[in-house]
Amino acid sequence: MVGCGVMGTDHARLLARQVSGAELTRLTDLDPGRATALAEELGALTSPDGPALVAEDDVDAVVVASADATHAALVLAAAAAGKPVLCEKPLAPSLEEAARVVRALDADGTAHLVALGFMRRVDPAHVELREALHRGAVGEPLLVHGTSRGVTAGPGATSESLITGSFVHEADSVPWLLGSPVTAVCWQAPGRTTGTSDLQDPQLLLLRTADGVLTTVEVLLNARYGYDIRCEVVGRSGALALSEAVQTTSLTTRTSDLSRTSAFAADWRPRFAEAYRRELQAWVDGVRGLEAPALATARDGLVAAAVCDAAVRSMRAAVDGAGPWTSVEVPS
Amino acid sequence: MVGCGVMGTDHARLLARQVSGAELTRLTDLDPGRATALAEELGALTSPDGPALVAEDDVDAVVVASADATHAALVLAAAAAGKPVLCEKPLAPSLEEAARVVRALDADGTAHLVALGFMRRVDPAHVELREALHRGAVGEPLLVHGTSRGVTAGPGATSESLITGSFVHEADSVPWLLGSPVTAVCWQAPGRTTGTSDLQDPQLLLLRTADGVLTTVEVLLNARYGYDIRCEVVGRSGALALSEAVQTTSLTTRTSDLSRTSAFAADWRPRFAEAYRRELQAWVDGVRGLEAPALATARDGLVAAAVCDAAVRSMRAAVDGAGPWTSVEVPS
Amino acid sequence: MVGCGVMGTDHARLLARQVSGAELTRLTDLDPGRATALAEELGALTSPDGPALVAEDDVDAVVVASADATHAALVLAAAAAGKPVLCEKPLAPSLEEAARVVRALDADGTAHLVALGFMRRVDPAHVELREALHRGAVGEPLLVHGTSRGVTAGPGATSESLITGSFVHEADSVPWLLGSPVTAVCWQAPGRTTGTSDLQDPQLLLLRTADGVLTTVEVLLNARYGYDIRCEVVGRSGALALSEAVQTTSLTTRTSDLSRTSAFAADWRPRFAEAYRRELQAWVDGVRGLEAPALATARDGLVAAAVCDAAVRSMRAAVDGAGPWTSVEVPS
Amino acid sequence: MVGCGVMGTDHARLLARQVSGAELTRLTDLDPGRATALAEELGALTSPDGPALVAEDDVDAVVVASADATHAALVLAAAAAGKPVLCEKPLAPSLEEAARVVRALDADGTAHLVALGFMRRVDPAHVELREALHRGAVGEPLLVHGTSRGVTAGPGATSESLITGSFVHEADSVPWLLGSPVTAVCWQAPGRTTGTSDLQDPQLLLLRTADGVLTTVEVLLNARYGYDIRCEVVGRSGALALSEAVQTTSLTTRTSDLSRTSAFAADWRPRFAEAYRRELQAWVDGVRGLEAPALATARDGLVAAAVCDAAVRSMRAAVDGAGPWTSVEVPS
Repeated sequence: MVGCGVMGTDHARLLARQVSGAELTRLTDLDPGRATALAEELGALTSPDGPALVAEDDVDAVVVASADATHAALVLAAAAAGKPVLCEKPLAPSLEEAARVVRALDADGTAHLVALGFMRRVDPAHVELREALHRGAVGEPLLVHGTSRGVTAGPGATSESLITGSFVHEADSVPWLLGSPVTAVCWQAPGRTTGTSDLQDPQLLLLRTADGVLTTVEVLLNARYGYDIRCEVVGRSGALALSEAVQTTSLTTRTSDLSRTSAFAADWRPRFAEAYRRELQAWVDGVRGLEAPALATARDGLVAAAVCDAAVRSMRAAVDGAGPWTSVEVPS
Repeated sequence: MVGCGVMGTDHARLLARQVSGAELTRLTDLDPGRATALAEELGALTSPDGPALVAEDDVDAVVVASADATHAALVLAAAAAGKPVLCEKPLAPSLEEAARVVRALDADGTAHLVALGFMRRVDPAHVELREALHRGAVGEPLLVHGTSRGVTAGPGATSESLITGSFVHEADSVPWLLGSPVTAVCWQAPGRTTGTSDLQDPQLLLLRTADGVLTTVEVLLNARYGYDIRCEVVGRSGALALSEAVQTTSLTTRTSDLSRTSAFAADWRPRFAEAYRRELQAWVDGVRGLEAPALATARDGLVAAAVCDAAVRSMRAAVDGAGPWTSVEVPS
Repeated sequence: MVGCGVMGTDHARLLARQVSGAELTRLTDLDPGRATALAEELGALTSPDGPALVAEDDVDAVVVASADATHAALVLAAAAAGKPVLCEKPLAPSLEEAARVVRALDADGTAHLVALGFMRRVDPAHVELREALHRGAVGEPLLVHGTSRGVTAGPGATSESLITGSFVHEADSVPWLLGSPVTAVCWQAPGRTTGTSDLQDPQLLLLRTADGVLTTVEVLLNARYGYDIRCEVVGRSGALALSEAVQTTSLTTRTSDLSRTSAFAADWRPRFAEAYRRELQAWVDGVRGLEAPALATARDGLVAAAVCDAAVRSMRAAVDGAGPWTSVEVPS
Repeated sequence: MVGCGVMGTDHARLLARQVSGAELTRLTDLDPGRATALAEELGALTSPDGPALVAEDDVDAVVVASADATHAALVLAAAAAGKPVLCEKPLAPSLEEAARVVRALDADGTAHLVALGFMRRVDPAHVELREALHRGAVGEPLLVHGTSRGVTAGPGATSESLITGSFVHEADSVPWLLGSPVTAVCWQAPGRTTGTSDLQDPQLLLLRTADGVLTTVEVLLNARYGYDIRCEVVGRSGALALSEAVQTTSLTTRTSDLSRTSAFAADWRPRFAEAYRRELQAWVDGVRGLEAPALATARDGLVAAAVCDAAVRSMRAAVDGAGPWTSVEVPS
């Protein structure tokens, strides 16, 4: 496990305690104390840094959950060493860099060793939605409405990081859901923001996919009220949506404020806990040859980056909160 | 309108402002000032007391919403005068008195002039439930679960008034729903109360109807969290229930306490506002000969009183919170 | 009542049977048999045509529910006769015509006699949403999401009639909700339609209001699954939405197909039945001088027509399903 | 793994593929072909029978999911061999036998080696309910309402097996939830059954716990519409309930039958899949000394059997569908 931040710590605990067939052997982090503490908790050893960890003899496969800027090099190092690697999104901080990684993997014939952590692809609710759609539950799709709301924007969030850090999940999940690539993106925003002059929040992204479906995605980082990820698909004979209850706890509470209440998750951890466990279990099963995992590939990561790139270009060309439709261009 | 308390004021406003074909001509109340103020608001006159109002020339029909102890005499007076009367429950404060009223009405051939205010019979949700049940939506019924919760017990509430004032609605609505009379009642209670030594709250009433259905009714006056009336019918091929949303407002609110909230009604007024309007409209339509109203009769009121009487007898015979099954006896 | 189609018949029945203070005296329809039958049912007389009805001595106020093309002339005739008129939307079939009507009313000082039938303004759910928004329940609004779905497009529906016949409700309700006028509209559509080459269905309209809020409105005539009108407002401190239960019946049904089900309305009649009753009651109360009704004015109808006109212009200028942002211009 | 029926097969797959720290080494079943097939699928070996499996050198711990009648002997054999054992409920087919097992374990000092498979204790929804209750979310509890419905009664189901096979879950979970033992049980039933003369279905069990709470439990095996386990706790300041959505899939579907639908589970497997995984993970963690598992003990199994025994005695003493309150007697 490279990186022991919030995400890396969660992943490490899952690997060590909740995943069959995996042994957590090595951890590393920029903060050695953090790595040591977690290694002690989980009965693992530490390595001095990411490249060193990749090279350890007792490391058969690598999870990358370190800073975004380190992903590309670690992925290439693991692939070069013939070790499977599960990399948190993004594959690389820029579209060009992501393209370079994919070209290198393709040239080396090592692309099969790389999986990207787009966890919605194994989230039970999203999988159920996709399966229902594909079995024709509502006929041919016409519209998709995605909503991605968090409680509070992280420190340093910008208009662009909203796209590359949050919207990127829909950039991957919408074409995965529809089985059709995104061809163009159009950026829109209200004349108000919950953020600063550097952070337009919320934003509305419109997507066209090759199949003719029109998608709206609202991203709102400072939603205050909870972590709330929704998706509705409208088809020719009906509509399918993630149940609202997917976001909330198992309880309905009625108390003296004259209301009936369900609690929201405060962030992605409770909402996607099971998705992360399944992602790691599927990845480990794939590494062990038990089954081909249903995870995103490095190329999927490149494509999602290209969708985000089009969104950013539309935003930069926007006048009075309205950007132009902008083509998605996936570098070859 | 006889009685200008909370219920009478609501009824008067509905009659004067929301009911087609009715003119509110006269009001009376024990508190003359209250009657005068309401009469001015609604453009009506006052009468010195209930019997005087019944006798007024400009009164064609009477609504009785005064104290329980006055109901029987006013109903008999109106019927004797040949004037239709809509009487709030109960028909009379005791089972014997109710029986006496029904016998008198039957002897005079004036029973058709009397309607009882069991508003669930015209509540859209209850009507929809009954219609679905009767068209076989879930097959032959097996069980009914009723829940009747209020925010706070009224002043002077007792274990017995809980039965005769609140449970009485289920005493009428359950046999109306099933089309089968209640034959026996069994009283149960936890070893805890939200009330005093005189008020066991909550109580659990078990009912048997002649068709073999078993019904549970929970009554809780001090529920704190809202006014909450539920009903579920379990049949051979499924279950039907009033939607939980029936109790709450039209909005779902998500705010910064990380929850999704729907507001409950604080009392019966918002919950049954439409039922009361329909009750009064149906009654007026009936008085005008437009259609036979689907309202409860004086005999229905007697039967409901007999069910309550069995519940009270079971309670009085209870040991350690458990009463015996007690037969319902309707006086002839 | 001018016009005894589906809408006129409903209105006539409500006026005659469910509205306090109103007497239905006269009906007329292009089909005299239809008018006669309804008049007999409701105890009213007929008039040979709309203008004749407006002129009848026993007509104090007029409801216009006839064909769209007849609205303007009937409204002007009623106003000229000094009779209050409630006109179903639209005020006139074209923006220019609507402007002409408003100018004429203003010139004559009779604008106060005219109300427009935008029933959402008295729909309890929409009123509750607006009140919660205005009391600051979720802070300053940022985004509005409207959804307007019907079961099946009417005969002869076109891309333009979808806007002027269905979207027009949001064209009125969004600025009413926000208290801020719509300044620009942008038309978008998927590359698929449930209709023909003349009917693009669904359509997505983006609206900007003067306050900076961005609104999305999806209109889908052939939704198949039910009549479904939704609205969500996202504010700085939370989100408010019409409860999903608003659209459905009071029952939750569980039957042998292993599902829990709530039934949708098949069209606007059950969904807005109470709104229509309140609209007529409020209008009659206003006519009687009891209270100033909260209904839309002729000018509101003109403004909504101007919003629709901008939507149509954006649609006509669209390339590949994407129209430009187009300014709303209200003729003076 | 002893027993490769529906339950045993699920458990075996979870242990082999989804549980960290476990290796599935041996399987056995009365049907050797079934055991062999599953062993091949999961990379395990077979043993000729349960006692032989318990004695295998490559078996460190045993899961018992074989026929009820074999549980007691296998538990005692495993405990005698010093091997931890997770036994599906019941501990033994009769109360006397269960008491004998517990006495033997206590005498040998091996009770700590035995865990009972009451999976609700690790079901996330039930755990969340219990935690909310214990942190005082609704104040001191007054009433509990449990509902336990399945789609179809299994072959050979009887009035008694409904109690010992289905109600037994509430016999364990209600006192676990409340932290107070069940002291008495009262059996009630409608005059109708979905079953035969040997199977009264549904049944209503009333429970009193030492803390004074009154509990109702409805058990219905032939509910037809889905697997539906509910629980509501009513307290002095509000009510807590498992969200209805807990039972259903992640999707809300709207299709051309004019309804909004959520799918129910067809049996306990989807509903409690995560509970079973957590149960096995917790048990394995406990076996490995990582943490004390929150699982039921052999004594908990004895106590639940005593509650069921009181229910059966009340049923046998019933007249016209109503049994007496019957004390729970836990053999020492």
